Formats: sequence, structure tokens, C-alpha cells
Amino acid sequence: MDPYTIHTKESGSLLPVRDVHVNISARSSTPGKMKGRKARWSVKPSDMSNRTFNPIRAIVDSMKVKPNPNKAMISLSIGDPTVFGNLPTDPEVTQAMKDALDSGKYNGYAPSIGYLSSREEIASYYHCAKAPLEAKDVILTSGCSEAIELCLAVLVNPGQNILVPRPGFSLYRTLAESLGIEVKLYNLLEIDLKQMESLIDEKTACLIINNPSNPCGSVFSKSHLQKILAVAARQCVPIVADEIYGDMVFSDCKYKPLATLSTDVPILSCGGLAKRWLVPGWRLGWILIHDRRDIFGNEIRDGLVKLTQRILGPCTIVQGALKSILRRTPQEFYHNTLSFLKANADLCYETLSSVPGLQPVCPSGAMYLMVGIEIEHFPEFEDDVEFTERLIAEQSVHCLPGKCFEYPNFFRVVITVPEVMMLEACSRIQEFCEQHYHCAEGSQEECDK
Amino acid sequence: MDPYTIHTKESGSLLPVRDVHVNISARSSTPGKMKGRKARWSVKPSDMSNRTFNPIRAIVDSMKVKPNPNKAMISLSIGDPTVFGNLPTDPEVTQAMKDALDSGKYNGYAPSIGYLSSREEIASYYHCAKAPLEAKDVILTSGCSEAIELCLAVLVNPGQNILVPRPGFSLYRTLAESLGIEVKLYNLLEIDLKQMESLIDEKTACLIINNPSNPCGSVFSKSHLQKILAVAARQCVPIVADEIYGDMVFSDCKYKPLATLSTDVPILSCGGLAKRWLVPGWRLGWILIHDRRDIFGNEIRDGLVKLTQRILGPCTIVQGALKSILRRTPQEFYHNTLSFLKANADLCYETLSSVPGLQPVCPSGAMYLMVGIEIEHFPEFEDDVEFTERLIAEQSVHCLPGKCFEYPNFFRVVITVPEVMMLEACSRIQEFCEQHYHCAEGSQEECDK
Ligand SMILES: Cc1ncc(COP(=O)(O)O)c(C=O)c1O
Ligand SMILES: Cc1ncc(COP(=O)(O)O)c(C=O)c1O
Repeated sequence: MDPYTIHTKESGSLLPVRDVHVNISARSSTPGKMKGRKARWSVKPSDMSNRTFNPIRAIVDSMKVKPNPNKAMISLSIGDPTVFGNLPTDPEVTQAMKDALDSGKYNGYAPSIGYLSSREEIASYYHCAKAPLEAKDVILTSGCSEAIELCLAVLVNPGQNILVPRPGFSLYRTLAESLGIEVKLYNLLEIDLKQMESLIDEKTACLIINNPSNPCGSVFSKSHLQKILAVAARQCVPIVADEIYGDMVFSDCKYKPLATLSTDVPILSCGGLAKRWLVPGWRLGWILIHDRRDIFGNEIRDGLVKLTQRILGPCTIVQGALKSILRRTPQEFYHNTLSFLKANADLCYETLSSVPGLQPVCPSGAMYLMVGIEIEHFPEFEDDVEFTERLIAEQSVHCLPGKCFEYPNFFRVVITVPEVMMLEACSRIQEFCEQHYHCAEGSQEECDK
Repeated sequence: MDPYTIHTKESGSLLPVRDVHVNISARSSTPGKMKGRKARWSVKPSDMSNRTFNPIRAIVDSMKVKPNPNKAMISLSIGDPTVFGNLPTDPEVTQAMKDALDSGKYNGYAPSIGYLSSREEIASYYHCAKAPLEAKDVILTSGCSEAIELCLAVLVNPGQNILVPRPGFSLYRTLAESLGIEVKLYNLLEIDLKQMESLIDEKTACLIINNPSNPCGSVFSKSHLQKILAVAARQCVPIVADEIYGDMVFSDCKYKPLATLSTDVPILSCGGLAKRWLVPGWRLGWILIHDRRDIFGNEIRDGLVKLTQRILGPCTIVQGALKSILRRTPQEFYHNTLSFLKANADLCYETLSSVPGLQPVCPSGAMYLMVGIEIEHFPEFEDDVEFTERLIAEQSVHCLPGKCFEYPNFFRVVITVPEVMMLEACSRIQEFCEQHYHCAEGSQEECDK
């Protein structure tokens, strides 16, 4: 029996604090018998945390190489457009945050799914006749990452599986395995919907479509999206569409939000401010619920709402700034970002295309470029991990190995760096490849070309 | 076989986009046989989302009462100090955010556990000789809610149990059940460490201690904390200390961070900006890892780090502002908040103490006051839920029923409202009680007093 600091009326007057035990209610405490716990410390991390595995971290952290001290490091590894300072967000975006701060209106708790007014703004921004949206169809999250987490958490039980693109963004697997969900990989680069469909079984709870994609920068055509939707409709599998790079496509190409092409497949579309508005640290994401046939119904909506109550949504200042961010950011800003990315993509693609042993994949959007390594021509290197390791050690250029995206013998280049760095990086990669390229046996003539 | 928009070198020149199928690698897609999925839509929310249950929402949402149209609503239900505008955050706090925005340095991704510099600031702010802290002991999270979630997720497996205070903050149960963890309740108001200890069994993975507490505003004495630590040490159970109201104690009382009293029990202390700095919407929380005997070791630390990689930490602007928030907020600000809360607590406690049928519990900190209802004197009402419902219907005063905190026949008053509202609310509660108070049978003399 031990005191803590409370006073109650029953104590008569206010008794001295800290040493009163008061029995407020009539309940009596029943000690019960002591159950034996081994009196020895043993605190182990949970199975869930053991299962939570970020392949990028694991692979990169185990790359124990030092850059070449004679060359300045050029990091083309992280999908963060802000690191070099050449792609600042628009001043309107920053101003919107300051206005939200000054208003004093956005310091308290918002509803866990986000302010109604902010959800209305997102709804009207992404609303279109073919995929109508209202505030009730929008859930604000802590980054697109949490959007994807909530979608998986509401749709999939442990032991079920989901279909994920290969190559693809590693977070899908990280989140799925954290939740005890099995991952099945469909091929993104050699598109084959039969293969995709063949992976679907009675335990498949959803299909993740990432368009435009990380790491390839690929953008699906309308007809391809329609065929994916046909698979989903035939197999009755809902889709989680990761559209964080939505609208980030180069001018020769058109981006179609998946939901605008479907009348029946229920779709949870995930997005956020991170990439298009160049503020990934602000952690504002969203889920758009498209469910015109009422297949998700209230149950999935309610499930999502309940899951948001665990951590109570994204920062309210960013939520308060959303209206101005969406309405005031000038078209020019989006346009400039894309022309910059396109120019770097072309530069990188063209330079690396001429490099013996490399097979770059030309992106149509997003901020990456995947490069195939004809590994048989680089016999010194066992795989893409060793290739990229040595590229750091010799040329101080850091790219992520394809293994991070479950796609061996490729590496990924981030194309948000300033043009001069892009150029320099490409010429170092070129030099590196020229130094290590060997003709494959029996194909001497190819080398002589 | 279907195209999507990529170009590769193998296509020769840049082929027209959108209709090229390219086989980048040599892998062939093997369709496999179609496994039959029932071609019928049936999308159900996961078990996890079904289990995720916020009792406050459930109880409050099912209270289908309208306030009295002749009286302005006074809401004393939500623990959000910002709603009435009388407790703004300090101008230094807002300025710190603007400076972080203007610097342009905090728009990109931070490490998922938070910027090193921000973690250093938290470490040195909470460091003391008896509970030393370095940056490596700090993890930044999306609010104290996520801090608690990560602690449970790393320490507890589904099927294990945790000890939680009753009455207590409902999020503990919400998070635990979401994760498949059993909750066992120890009595907070009739403190009895035997009862607490008797609940511990071989499946007990941690003990949650909330000090100062929501909903009672109780503050544990040093000797009581030491006895709790002795239980934990004897039973070898680590502690999750929810210290979000740390330092928010009234002047006649002293707050001791739990970790300063222990040399052996491993403790994860959770905190955040929400309450003390009056910005709950900003969603900045933290975990302080106290593990002087190295019982958590690297495993639990690594587990926490891995779990943060799922949603990548809190808003970077708030992280960037932390240094100034912690260094520049004037002592006066904290002091003013506490004197305001103390004055309201006294006012509310004194008024309600004189009301027949009520038994207020005088708080020593935090921002709440619990009031016992002598329900036998209110025979019209079945329980605290009906009591608080009728209080809304007749007096337009909204308090949360004790049931929200697993403590029937109490209600909780939030004491952050302006003094005039506090006064008005108390006199309405008084009127309400006087109108409904009935002498218990056979105790007429009590009523005549
Ligand atoms: C395809 C894809 N989805 C989601 C995300 C995560 O976005 P956020 O930073 O908003 O969580 C990323 C980030 O790189 C991404 O590439
Ligand atoms: C005891 C307790 N812990 C944690 C929290 C959650 O804090 P945050 O808003 O930082 O998630 C609250 C909020 O009311 C609380 O009362």
C-alpha cells in the first residue's frame, strides 16, 4: 500500500500531499497468488520487429567501402530531391506553412483522418468525372509510407499474400513482412499479365500497382492499365495504387490515375506531397478511396479510420497549409521540375547508352533511371552489389544496386542531382566500365566494334 | 503481353512510347496454371483493423444526445489544450518553426529515427547524472502515440500481455489489442503493489506507468516510484513510462522521471511536444531509451530502428525547430501554463467538492480532474455514461464518462478551458446534480444535513 499525490473530499480537508492513501471507490484489491516469473532479465525484440526489414538499409549498411579520397563523393542513391539544394520547393509552399503557423488555428489535434477542410481540398484537387472524390473518400496520413501501411493493414491478414512489382520499391516488402503478409512478385519490366494473373490465388488480398514507378520511371499506358484492371476485376482482387509520382511524367507521355479507368475495381490510391512538391520530410500523404461499386463499403472505410486512431494523423501545420499549397503553387513550378528531370534523364540515358556493358532503361517519369549491367562482361564483379561497391571505392559514385529492388544486375541512378554532377557522375561511370569491361568469351567481334 | 512506356537501348533508337514491349533481361515469364479464385467480390477488413478499437470514440459516438439548445455547449471532453485559444503556444515555438522553414534545410528526408542534431537536443535536455542520455538513446516519433506504439511493437509479441493502469489512457488498450496483445489492469487509484505484482505472469512483456497521469492528474511520489521499480526488478519486467505530462505538476508537488530512480530496470520513456508546449497537432514525440544494465542491449535498439523505417519519422520542420523550442521557450511560459491549470483545478475541485453526490479527485498535475459519482444517489441514471449523456442534454456540458478509462462511475473534466467557462461548467454540473440527487434509502439524515 503506497501513497501517491491525490486529495479527495473524503480526506476531509486538503491533507498534505504525497503521503495519503485514499480508497476512493469501494473495490478491494485482491492480491491473488504470485505466479512465478523467472527472476532473470531476458528482453527480446518481438517477432514483428525481427520481421521488419528494410533491404536498402541492410544492403547499403553492409557495403563497407570507402569512397575514393581523390574524388568528391556523388551520391545518386537516395530518392530525396532536396539533398543538393538545386530543387527547392516553391516559395508559395513555404509561405503556406508560415500562414498556417501564424493563423494559430492548426496547433491542436485534428481528426485522426485529417481536417475536413484539408480533405475537401485534396478531394477537389483529384476529383474528376471518371473518378469522383469527396472529403469522405480522403484519409490524410503520415507520408505515403503510412498510406501504404494502412492500406495493407486494413486489407490483408497475416498469412495472406499481395502482389508486388519487381523491380519495385522496397517498402512494400518491408511493410508486408512486418505485418506477416507474404509477398509475390510480378514482373514489371517484362510485362506479362498472364504471369501476374497466375500468381493470384485464394489468399491474394490485393495487388500493388506503382505508376509512375520507382525504380524504373516507367509510366503505364492507358491500355496497359485497362488490362491490369481487367485482371483485378476477373480475379476480384482490389488494387492499392501507389501514385506518389502521379503527374510526374515527361511531356512525351501521359499519366492516367488508375481509378479514372475503372468503373468496378475498388482502388485505394496512395499519394503525398513528398515528390511533386519536393518536401519529403514533411510527411504528408493520403489515401484516396475509389469504390464506385461499393465493394469496400463502410467496413473498409471504418477499418481505415480505426487504424488512423493509433497515431493520430500527420502534422497539422502541413494539413493547414494544404489548401494554399494545392491552389497557389504555380504551374511553372511543376513544369520546371519536370523539364529539369527530363533533361537529366536524357543526359544520363544517352551517356550510359554508349557505355559498353550497360543497358539503361529510359524513364518516362518519376526521378530515377535503371541501368542494366551485362554482368558477363564484368567478370571481376560477382553481382550488382559488388559492381556498385567498387564504383564507390574507385569513382566515389554511389548508386543503389538492383538487389535493393529485387532486380539483380541493375543499378539505380537518382536523376535529381545538378546537371554538372549528373555529367560528372556519368563520365565516372563510363570510365569505371571501360576499365572493367571484358569481352565475353567467344564474342570478340562485339568488342572490336 | 502488354506494353508500357519505356525505351531501351536495345530498341535501337528511341521507339515511339507506349506501344513497345521490351524484354530487358533474359528471364522468361512463366504463366503457370490459373488457380481458381472465387470470381465474386468480397473485401473484408483485416482482423487487425477489427481489433483496433478506440473506446472513447465508440462510447462517445454512441452517445446520441443533443445539447440543450438554450445553453451554449461547453466541451470538457478532449485533452486538447488549444481548442479555446486561451492557451496558445509560446511565440518562440512558432518562430522556431518559421526559422526552420526559412532555412530550407529541413525539407528532405531525415533518418527514420530523426535528425542526429534534434536527437542530441532532446538528449541534452533530458540528460541528468542519474539518468544519462545521448543522441543514440533518443528516437523521434510521430507523437507520443507512435512512441508508445513502437515500444509495444518491439517489446511484446501477440499473445503476451502488458500491465496497464485503471483508470488509464485508452490508447494503451487500443494499441495493444491492435497488435494482438492482452491487457491486464492494475489499480491506479487504490494503489496496491501486491495487486499489480500478482498480475504479472510469464507472459507479461512490460508494465506501462503513466506519470503524471491521464485521467487523474495524479503524480507519483518518489517512494512510490521506487516501489514500482522494485516490483519490475523483482519480476524482471521492463517498463514503458508514458511521461508525456512530465514536468507538468503543480508547485506543491515534485515530478521525478522514472529513470532517474532506477539503476537496473530497463525503461523506455515516452514523451512529446503535445502537452507541455501546447502543440498536440504537430505530432512530435520521442522515446528515451534508459538501459544502464544493458538489458535491452542492441537488439531492442535495432528493433526500434527497424520499426521506425515503416513510416519514416515525424515532420522534419518540427524536428528542425526542436533546438530553439527547447532552448528558447521562456520559463515563464511553462510557469504560466501551470498556474493557470492549478487555478482551474482548484476552482473545479472546490466547487464540485461541495456538490452532493460527487467525489472529485484533486489532481497534482496534467490537465484533468476525475470526479466520482455516488451513483446510488442518482437512481435515474444507470451509470456514468447515462449521467454524462444527460449532462449534455440538460446542461450542454460535455465530459467523458469514466467508462472511457475503464473506471465506471466517474467522469473526467478537462481543465484547460478559460476560467469563466470552468466556472460556468461547474455551476451547471452543480445544478444538474442538485436536480437529480436522491437520498439513498435509509439515509435520510444524510440528506437533511
Ligand atoms: C514508390 C514510392 N512510394 C512511396 C514512397 C514513400 O513516400 P513518403 O516519403 O511520402 O512516405 C516512395 C519514396 O521514395 C516511393 O518511391
Ligand atoms: C497519457 C497520454 N499519453 C499519450 C498521449 C498521446 O500524445 P500525442 O498526442 O503526442 O500522441 C496522450 C494524449 O492525450 C495522453 O494523455
